[in-house]
Amino acid sequence: MTRAELIAQIKAKRSFLCVGLDTSLDRIPKHLLDFDDPIFEFNKQIIDATKDLCVAYKPNLAFYESLGIKGWESLQKTLDYIPKNIFTIADAKRGDIGNTSSMYAKAFFENMDFDSVTVAPYMGKDSVQPFFVYDNKWVILLALTSNEGGKDFQLIESAGKPLYQEVLETSSQWGDSSNMMYVVGATRADWLKEIRNTIPDHFLLVPGVGAQGGSLQEVAKFGMNSDCGLLVNSSRGIIYASDGPDFATAAHKQALKLQQQMEGELIKFQII
Amino acid sequence: MTRAELIAQIKAKRSFLCVGLDTSLDRIPKHLLDFDDPIFEFNKQIIDATKDLCVAYKPNLAFYESLGIKGWESLQKTLDYIPKNIFTIADAKRGDIGNTSSMYAKAFFENMDFDSVTVAPYMGKDSVQPFFVYDNKWVILLALTSNEGGKDFQLIESAGKPLYQEVLETSSQWGDSSNMMYVVGATRADWLKEIRNTIPDHFLLVPGVGAQGGSLQEVAKFGMNSDCGLLVNSSRGIIYASDGPDFATAAHKQALKLQQQMEGELIKFQII
Repeated sequence: MTRAELIAQIKAKRSFLCVGLDTSLDRIPKHLLDFDDPIFEFNKQIIDATKDLCVAYKPNLAFYESLGIKGWESLQKTLDYIPKNIFTIADAKRGDIGNTSSMYAKAFFENMDFDSVTVAPYMGKDSVQPFFVYDNKWVILLALTSNEGGKDFQLIESAGKPLYQEVLETSSQWGDSSNMMYVVGATRADWLKEIRNTIPDHFLLVPGVGAQGGSLQEVAKFGMNSDCGLLVNSSRGIIYASDGPDFATAAHKQALKLQQQMEGELIKFQII
Repeated sequence: MTRAELIAQIKAKRSFLCVGLDTSLDRIPKHLLDFDDPIFEFNKQIIDATKDLCVAYKPNLAFYESLGIKGWESLQKTLDYIPKNIFTIADAKRGDIGNTSSMYAKAFFENMDFDSVTVAPYMGKDSVQPFFVYDNKWVILLALTSNEGGKDFQLIESAGKPLYQEVLETSSQWGDSSNMMYVVGATRADWLKEIRNTIPDHFLLVPGVGAQGGSLQEVAKFGMNSDCGLLVNSSRGIIYASDGPDFATAAHKQALKLQQQMEGELIKFQII
């Protein structure tokens, strides 16, 4: 998907919501366990209930890998089921030496036709570049993550600059805002402001709104640019809004709530 | 596998060789393409030819993922074929927030029964800890990688200390030398010396000997400890020693050459 197509979708749906498909057999409603492929059945109903309200889906690869080959089948079926005009993110956090990253790019961009993949920066430029070979595909690089352990190394300062800032400055030279986004946790709005100064044009994938405690208003205030430039993810808050037979209706309701808040922000910042 | 079992294996085989199974349809001998599962057939013959000379096998996950579900089947068959007394490494470079890393741990330690998995440090403590829940399983954390891009962030200095050194010091508090190893590239022997000072007891997984240019003698000189403390990997130099029908014999020959050099080092440092 191109940047222009993504922005058009955001404006049409009046939303910058990404729904995280962290689908686990332990968490889905019990009645689905009778289906041949409960994971896919759950995802299918979640997609039906939310596809008009979100602009992206983000399956978390670990949840599918943990089920072995059957999990990969569920993932492929899920990806095939997502409407083609919605942006797809393989949340895989891969990254390896060049010839190995090429193989990951092949896995996610050729075999599975995801629009994007999340990548860890630790191994540097040649671990990221192979993903740029594909037209209209995206690298979403980890910069500042919202988990507790994110502080262990990402905030280490060198010449007054935290590591995540160095990651942004260095890596933004490897691609551009048409093939690269960044994962930026929403835990501290003032950091978001600095990040937006460093990379004014790039889209940011922001987890941590909702279940993980970030505020959508703050994220929009400090993170939005003139193209919106934000994808805000919610996983558990939407997909596990209910663990009963009404899970899809409950998911719709939560997604609608977020979409309406997002519409308000898009209007406030004159994007729509 | 326990640390004692690994050390016993090293002494019995007089080797600390790890064979990297970076198996690609583009590189294996053409006559294998007629088999139902060429990747597994290649690995099977490589394992038969090298299992008496090495103490570990390291399938590179990207190569299997790039083939989709069929690749995962080849990987599972390969893992099942590796003799149980040989250490197995899922070279996956995973790492995510706690509940997601738990899923990766389940994928590699429960479903697939690998002894260890390589993990990227960028997301910190809670991305690593879930792997420690399993007895006699190992995390092999990236510290200093030998690829060109390894320099981009791993050498950034804070208070006179490079990032990889901070990763070693901080992360070595999360586990101990019975459930944690480190990936350390062999490109600079003096760094290896410093690393050994920081973590005297941990095993180091050293890629970059052979095809990538490191010297086994230097690695042993600066990296060995009284338990050996080294697993030295060779992938392409062994498995693609020949692309003809004699590939397994050629692999045996290359592995034997490395084993003999390693035996010399083990004797020199009075490990055996």
